[in-house]
Amino acid sequence: MANRRMHLMGYVIAGPTWHHNGSWRHARSDVPDMLDAGRYETIARVLERGKFDGLFFVDTLALVEFFNERFDAVVRNGGQIFMLEPTQLLAAMARVTRHLGLAATMSTGFYPPFHIARAFASLDHISKGRAGWNIVTSMLTREAQNFGVDAMMDPDQRYDHADEVVEASCALWESWAPDAIVYDRDKGVFADPAKVKHANYQGKWVKTRGPLPTPRSPQGRPVLMQAGSSGRGRDFAARWAEVVFTLQHAKTDMQAFYADVKGRMEKLGRPPSDCAILPGIDVVVGETESIAQEKSEYMRSLVNAEFGVAEMGNATGANFAGLDLDTKVGELELKQGARGMLDVIMQGSRANDFTLREAGRRYGYTRMNPLLVGTATMIADRLQDLFESDCCDGFMLCPSLTPSGYEEFCQMVVPELQRRGLFRTEYGGATFREHLKEG
Amino acid sequence: MANRRMHLMGYVIAGPTWHHNGSWRHARSDVPDMLDAGRYETIARVLERGKFDGLFFVDTLALVEFFNERFDAVVRNGGQIFMLEPTQLLAAMARVTRHLGLAATMSTGFYPPFHIARAFASLDHISKGRAGWNIVTSMLTREAQNFGVDAMMDPDQRYDHADEVVEASCALWESWAPDAIVYDRDKGVFADPAKVKHANYQGKWVKTRGPLPTPRSPQGRPVLMQAGSSGRGRDFAARWAEVVFTLQHAKTDMQAFYADVKGRMEKLGRPPSDCAILPGIDVVVGETESIAQEKSEYMRSLVNAEFGVAEMGNATGANFAGLDLDTKVGELELKQGARGMLDVIMQGSRANDFTLREAGRRYGYTRMNPLLVGTATMIADRLQDLFESDCCDGFMLCPSLTPSGYEEFCQMVVPELQRRGLFRTEYGGATFREHLKEG
Repeated sequence: MANRRMHLMGYVIAGPTWHHNGSWRHARSDVPDMLDAGRYETIARVLERGKFDGLFFVDTLALVEFFNERFDAVVRNGGQIFMLEPTQLLAAMARVTRHLGLAATMSTGFYPPFHIARAFASLDHISKGRAGWNIVTSMLTREAQNFGVDAMMDPDQRYDHADEVVEASCALWESWAPDAIVYDRDKGVFADPAKVKHANYQGKWVKTRGPLPTPRSPQGRPVLMQAGSSGRGRDFAARWAEVVFTLQHAKTDMQAFYADVKGRMEKLGRPPSDCAILPGIDVVVGETESIAQEKSEYMRSLVNAEFGVAEMGNATGANFAGLDLDTKVGELELKQGARGMLDVIMQGSRANDFTLREAGRRYGYTRMNPLLVGTATMIADRLQDLFESDCCDGFMLCPSLTPSGYEEFCQMVVPELQRRGLFRTEYGGATFREHLKEG
Repeated sequence: MANRRMHLMGYVIAGPTWHHNGSWRHARSDVPDMLDAGRYETIARVLERGKFDGLFFVDTLALVEFFNERFDAVVRNGGQIFMLEPTQLLAAMARVTRHLGLAATMSTGFYPPFHIARAFASLDHISKGRAGWNIVTSMLTREAQNFGVDAMMDPDQRYDHADEVVEASCALWESWAPDAIVYDRDKGVFADPAKVKHANYQGKWVKTRGPLPTPRSPQGRPVLMQAGSSGRGRDFAARWAEVVFTLQHAKTDMQAFYADVKGRMEKLGRPPSDCAILPGIDVVVGETESIAQEKSEYMRSLVNAEFGVAEMGNATGANFAGLDLDTKVGELELKQGARGMLDVIMQGSRANDFTLREAGRRYGYTRMNPLLVGTATMIADRLQDLFESDCCDGFMLCPSLTPSGYEEFCQMVVPELQRRGLFRTEYGGATFREHLKEG
């Protein structure tokens, strides 16, 4: 345990709101640059200076509409709007960094395996071995409708389908042997065709012939990430994921989730160390505790609590519209929704005895993630405790304000973690996967 | 006519062969860097110093297999292999340039309009108004099979389908009014939902609801490019294209094509000046004529003529396998194939009384494009003559060797064209579309 080190990743959305639904109103917010690749390059540089393992773009293929209403709430309040295509931004970010892992969400529901395989093989070449794929199955009807599809598969079936998409992608990534390119100028032999093969993948839903026209990339295939919280989602993660991003409110929930996923991996014969489980953490750091507290209070004052309730409803599928915002969440009887996600929100709300408005304020601040506020030492203490209590292998960081939240964390908290031997002081390897294997 | 200026674009493929099928064997070739984004950034910088309107990536969604054989010929000989996903490279290139138009091929057959619209809206933001979309319908069975589809639509139907994909993409690009984003920090109003709308596109084949989550991009929509040569393809171009890339061997063929497309535009009520017709031109420049000739002879010695015959057969769908390479092309009776493309090859071969081997050598050098070899003055003379003879509005340049072919053209030929008042000395506008409207 003495030498075990944590893994840190950054959470990014190419739009106005990541977790905090009003941080775009802060005078120091970089959201005015949300459509400029420079915003994302800056974040990548900051995280690389902080020796982070990587970052990843959350993504959704629709302008979100809450229940049967229009997108008005999201547009007016500047909610989570996924404005730019992440792999383009990652390519730009790859050119201003040398070590940082660079991951994007891509949906197995709406991208065929050929596009997925080609996108990440390209990104892996462009970044020289730093690509990651956050696998999502997509769950919104609004996404389906953007692709002319009216009905979604049921959730478990979506994972069966996703298994096929990942299998097909892997077959495509193996099209070219690592030594296929010969480049013999004299004989005029560019590559050895015997070292290139068809994928010939045929599943129940998915079919692709291949080969991929892209030669084998430095990592062979991107680092696979996943964030499913349902039982079927956890099985999927146990089979494929090298990073699991999870949302757990309390320490005991983290421990239970951690043990469960690692147990599922062992059942499948995968060493538990092959997957880094990273719960989301929101952080506000200050030079003193009172500075941090005041900064956090100021951030809280910017939250739109009513909109937070609507966002929370949308995220869980449990429509809170029309309910009295002063009702205790623990008294509500809610059944619908994305399995797992609703549980997390209910856990967090019950633990704090939140009213719906309070839950909405919290959701609109941190999406029910643990919020760590304090000095570098205090935050390092909390992270160390969670890390050493079988809660996780590190953290997925989401600051309330960008880029300063990342800058403060990297300049103040990271050195404290390094002093304690809990985090790398230099990158040991060259690729994203090698960073994850370190420690 | 005095003030009319030509438009110049560069041709790029993210792989070993563009036109010349053996130039990767040249000691000064940059093909060893084919998987490094730096190769493409260098080309973009060179073309921007040369004040080019833009460049575009050719693309195909398969490792090409000639007829029923495997991909062995293409892999062994280093033929046209489309290795990296172009929009990622364009995003990186956008970050090292400020003026150059940046276009990618994307297939209406294998990308749904939502992905197309989002990709080019993103690229238009990242490049601040320099995105272009080269619309192709895809014609290879091998591409279809990579997407699990066994049979292709017939060619005319593919254009009907493409019309719908472009219409749907346009509807998505219009989701956000240009002034939808308010960013009122005090009132907490991020954007005006009344200025965002659904696309609600419903065609015979294509359906999408929208809105696009991407705010209106600087150009509103990317510059639309097209390269169809069949009658239906020309109608499609006349309706949509702002740039037409065409392959014509002889001056009279260029004039006929030019008049035909401009005539089709007028019939549809579009001003002929709204579309720049750019025939492909391959160029070898030298300090003296004899240097240029020797350089060109050396390049010709690197061509793989047999492989050129196979490539030519693949491009036209006319299988030349098994034929005597010393047969005159004019004596062959060939019927199958991509309409238009075969005509161009037959024209070029008949004009030169080529044998199949000679045609293969020419195809393997320039794809039957006009090859201009000489001093800057000689090449400027040829370009000026074509430009002033109703052949074209400028040229799509493909050098035999990169990046030096582009460097030589920009350093030697461009200044000569500028002296003659035939080409801009500075960019007048900010966007790709503005460059095309100049002159």
